[in-house]
Amino acid sequence: MNLADAQALDRADPFAPLRDRFSIPDGVIYLDGNSLGVLPKSVAARTAKVVAEEWGRDLITSWNKHDWIDLPRRVGERIAPLIGAKPGTVVVADSTSLNIFKLLAVAVGRSGRRVIQTEAGNFPTDVYIAGGLASLTGHGVRVDDLSVIGEDVAVVLVTEVNYRTGARHDMRALTERAHASGAVVIWDLCHSAGAFPVDLAGADADYAIGCCYKYLNGGPGAPAFAYVAPRHLAELRTPLSGWLGHAAPFAFAADYQPAEGIDALRVGTPPVISMSALDAALDAYDGVDLAAVRLKADALFELFTSEVAARCPEFELLTPRDAGKRGTQVSLRHAEGYAIMQALIARGVIGDFRQPDIMRFGLTPLYLRFEDVFRAAEVLAEVMATRAWDREAFKRKAKVV
Amino acid sequence: MNLADAQALDRADPFAPLRDRFSIPDGVIYLDGNSLGVLPKSVAARTAKVVAEEWGRDLITSWNKHDWIDLPRRVGERIAPLIGAKPGTVVVADSTSLNIFKLLAVAVGRSGRRVIQTEAGNFPTDVYIAGGLASLTGHGVRVDDLSVIGEDVAVVLVTEVNYRTGARHDMRALTERAHASGAVVIWDLCHSAGAFPVDLAGADADYAIGCCYKYLNGGPGAPAFAYVAPRHLAELRTPLSGWLGHAAPFAFAADYQPAEGIDALRVGTPPVISMSALDAALDAYDGVDLAAVRLKADALFELFTSEVAARCPEFELLTPRDAGKRGTQVSLRHAEGYAIMQALIARGVIGDFRQPDIMRFGLTPLYLRFEDVFRAAEVLAEVMATRAWDREAFKRKAKVV
Repeated sequence: MNLADAQALDRADPFAPLRDRFSIPDGVIYLDGNSLGVLPKSVAARTAKVVAEEWGRDLITSWNKHDWIDLPRRVGERIAPLIGAKPGTVVVADSTSLNIFKLLAVAVGRSGRRVIQTEAGNFPTDVYIAGGLASLTGHGVRVDDLSVIGEDVAVVLVTEVNYRTGARHDMRALTERAHASGAVVIWDLCHSAGAFPVDLAGADADYAIGCCYKYLNGGPGAPAFAYVAPRHLAELRTPLSGWLGHAAPFAFAADYQPAEGIDALRVGTPPVISMSALDAALDAYDGVDLAAVRLKADALFELFTSEVAARCPEFELLTPRDAGKRGTQVSLRHAEGYAIMQALIARGVIGDFRQPDIMRFGLTPLYLRFEDVFRAAEVLAEVMATRAWDREAFKRKAKVV
Repeated sequence: MNLADAQALDRADPFAPLRDRFSIPDGVIYLDGNSLGVLPKSVAARTAKVVAEEWGRDLITSWNKHDWIDLPRRVGERIAPLIGAKPGTVVVADSTSLNIFKLLAVAVGRSGRRVIQTEAGNFPTDVYIAGGLASLTGHGVRVDDLSVIGEDVAVVLVTEVNYRTGARHDMRALTERAHASGAVVIWDLCHSAGAFPVDLAGADADYAIGCCYKYLNGGPGAPAFAYVAPRHLAELRTPLSGWLGHAAPFAFAADYQPAEGIDALRVGTPPVISMSALDAALDAYDGVDLAAVRLKADALFELFTSEVAARCPEFELLTPRDAGKRGTQVSLRHAEGYAIMQALIARGVIGDFRQPDIMRFGLTPLYLRFEDVFRAAEVLAEVMATRAWDREAFKRKAKVV
């Protein structure tokens, strides 16, 4: 394939016009949308309005006038169709870590079993939070592979798409296996939501959480979402029992009574500016068919991995080639991965690095062109051919890698 | 006193120029800064920059380039001097409710005692969260007055200034009493921080939390702060053990190891846009002497309460007159308080209402003029004299009151 071929693919791409919904810096090929999505153009005007008009002009009356009070639920309703969730089952609140804590506590509170199971290699915060809850309740945390789910397991906490390798679990099969042994599952969708069709209802999933700043483009530290299956919504009660999860927060009652339904997962006052930015960002998904998004992601994957394989055989592809067994990132392994990634970034090709030797490239079809990933492979080949990465400046680790 | 007298006070007021640091709508007298502070002018440009440049242009590199990673600590360091805290003891993270959970868990984890004590009439979320933690750990929650702190009490959770009455506890005396009986104290500073000088170090306080959207003007749902006394900082460990509270988040280690010091109270990725708005908002406190702020608040209190008493004897002043025994809000009681407040708001005098019969007026000296509170008393008198509140439209309760 050559550049003209890639450009021809772009001309035939039905998603090509969507790129205009995003603000993408000149000279940058951004392959880190799996870590922080780019800025949707709809965001700047909305945050300016929230600051100047809703906060600045309408002040406290905005809780009613602009319905800030229901923002967590309204934004949740917009995320629901992207993850195969029914209305009334998704709320936006706090961070992924905190939502994991809430749902783990809910799940173990409903089971007599004493074990939280998660897999080795899960994203660290999932495992850390499980340990934190267990330190209070005395549950055990089993970190293992998930091929066997024991009869002592109350809840399985699993990330659908592994953050390092990009490998994807079969949500339906694993949920079924867990149910068969009497456990429930919390699905971490951080690397799924917005990347491809997730079908929580179809997979009979129990609970899910996920972040909104990766494929959903909600902005740095955008509040996270939480999902609870309709059958688990009755008497949903979390130990993070803050006043905005109360059935009647403004009654200021002495006793905590959880709100009906998914609102019970709310805790404190939400960060309205950040949450409004997320709300505006979701405009970029208006009318978008995620099944088609996935098809384009797979085509980008094929193009990028085949060009890299042809030019740079020294990289090991960690991500499964089988589209059914992976998400939409490409993970390449190289002992000098950190320095190589820094050299790429210096050339405007932005991915990221994960310890000890993994270079990650996120493929985000709403704003990436075939030309972009073709050029990224070219730049990578040039960096390798010239050993451009082999300089001290590229080997100095930054705070965040 | 007449209007000219109030205006003369404004001309002599050293804080008068500070009003220009805020964006205040025309025709509004805003007496709800104890619930949502007004918009500092420094915020709009900062949020626009964070969105367009830090997120939009610099993307993922901003974690390093704009030091997003240390924002929670940097903003904490700006709040520290406003609450009498030493450097390295304050971090901004999550919400007040969540920070209460963290610190309660820390406090009970360090004590063999089985009781969390709080007082009747504390802000509901404090009591709800104590109950939530206790549901996991089996601790008892005692809701009582704080005149006696039993030998079974691990931690006292108390709000310095009562949200309904405006009455203020003596932080030094209560802390001493708790220490004498072997308990520690968590101070909720939601109605203190930014309103008057708080001296956490001087009072030998153990822990504190507070919100940033009231007197600190950080914007709707601005992230909250948490304080830990230097003597308690070693091995600070919370069960909300998220990855950004880890000693080395980007090592992606299998085991949780809390960060050194106050950073251990961090959990997930912070809402950068909202937190940056707070950071910019704090510019309004640059060079401000909180002792002088308090003196002006007391003068505003005297003016408002004496004018109301002279014109509307039907209101009961719930707030203690003694400046040493109160914060800076005025709480008036009236059976028709809700409708009266709605009638005031319709006339541009914005306060709020708390069940069952309390009208609250926040006095925020950085941007309120003597003329404002004088006029507010006049408008209140007019509403009462004309029974303007006695209409159906003013009696319909909004979602948020």
